[in-house]
Amino acid sequence: MARTGNATSRRPTGTSGQPRKRAGRLQSAGVIREAATALFLRNGYLGTSMDEIAALAGVSKQTVYTHFADKERLFTELVLGNTRPVDEFIPVLTHLLQDPDDLEENLRELARRYLGSVIQPPVLQLRRLVIGEAGRFPELARTYYERVPERVVATLATSLQHLAERGLLRLDDSLLAARHFAALVLWIPLDRAMFVANGEPPAAAELERLAGAGVRVFLAAYGQA
Amino acid sequence: MARTGNATSRRPTGTSGQPRKRAGRLQSAGVIREAATALFLRNGYLGTSMDEIAALAGVSKQTVYTHFADKERLFTELVLGNTRPVDEFIPVLTHLLQDPDDLEENLRELARRYLGSVIQPPVLQLRRLVIGEAGRFPELARTYYERVPERVVATLATSLQHLAERGLLRLDDSLLAARHFAALVLWIPLDRAMFVANGEPPAAAELERLAGAGVRVFLAAYGQA
Repeated sequence: MARTGNATSRRPTGTSGQPRKRAGRLQSAGVIREAATALFLRNGYLGTSMDEIAALAGVSKQTVYTHFADKERLFTELVLGNTRPVDEFIPVLTHLLQDPDDLEENLRELARRYLGSVIQPPVLQLRRLVIGEAGRFPELARTYYERVPERVVATLATSLQHLAERGLLRLDDSLLAARHFAALVLWIPLDRAMFVANGEPPAAAELERLAGAGVRVFLAAYGQA
Repeated sequence: MARTGNATSRRPTGTSGQPRKRAGRLQSAGVIREAATALFLRNGYLGTSMDEIAALAGVSKQTVYTHFADKERLFTELVLGNTRPVDEFIPVLTHLLQDPDDLEENLRELARRYLGSVIQPPVLQLRRLVIGEAGRFPELARTYYERVPERVVATLATSLQHLAERGLLRLDDSLLAARHFAALVLWIPLDRAMFVANGEPPAAAELERLAGAGVRVFLAAYGQA
């Protein structure tokens, strides 16, 4: 693995080999995280044991427990640490609605990018996992909801509010408008993907069609006449 | 339990006690189904054992296996047998859109009833369960999707098509319009409910507001100007 190569080629800079040891520890934490993510996404929380995580990571069970106190804490950390798609999408969203020359075209591009950030297998698997475990881990599921989908919606609401203030949209309640946008753009393929786990991902042309149709309905209600 | 009382008070009508025996068998199948449903909804598929189901039903494990070959078949039967909310909702839907005096008011009533049929704890728990197990049981989750949410959407599409033919709506693609209606009405509270398993259910006034707002957006796009 590339990560192993990089870490071992790094020169120890301390006097007692400490940095090398720390690099090794970081490395095994990363490998454990990767193994645990793969297993939790495939087999669920109850279907995954610390033994299997250790085996897939190629470390001892003791090493797993050195890094993560128990399975629940490892699971929590993985679910809440998995925010990259949303971290990457938020600046795109803000940028597209900042100062649009063609609002309709930028909303369509936003819809495409929104779909692209959500309709990808690891995101869908994580979503299914968190929903399926919401009864067992209600605080975790709620926190995930607030930090991931709701963070996008809140940012979108702020952008829509600015557009309304500049006379480009008509709305009273920007949070409601943001949620309607999310509903119109995401619901159709996302609801299907929640249940159809072994289906073909939707074709690009289908996502394009849904993005366009969702924006058309949104602008019929919220656009300037 | 009421069911036990009713069944044992029923008079055997055959000559050899067969009906009484059959009533007893139907009775234990019902009790097992109820116990299994409660446990699967609370603890998930892997978190539920046939031993626990037998114990909660107050029957022997052997009796459970007499009725249901294995845990997977029991689970499948329970998930696919749980279609009452949709069976009850479909005639309401058809009736409300049959010949509306006031289309907007009837769409609002439909939106309220749609929300009412979906936003109730056992339906939400089952939905979380099926989504969470979609990776393990892809065919089951897909079949549930087709028989439950998609059946409503297909019926709604037919009703919307009739309204369009009578000049009451403007649409090219009735299935897309039906999905937009579902998205606008259901997404906001349903998406939240998938993640927030221990929250207060939304207040009636909030559902009323969401139903009205969803219909307003739908009609801005699909209503006659």
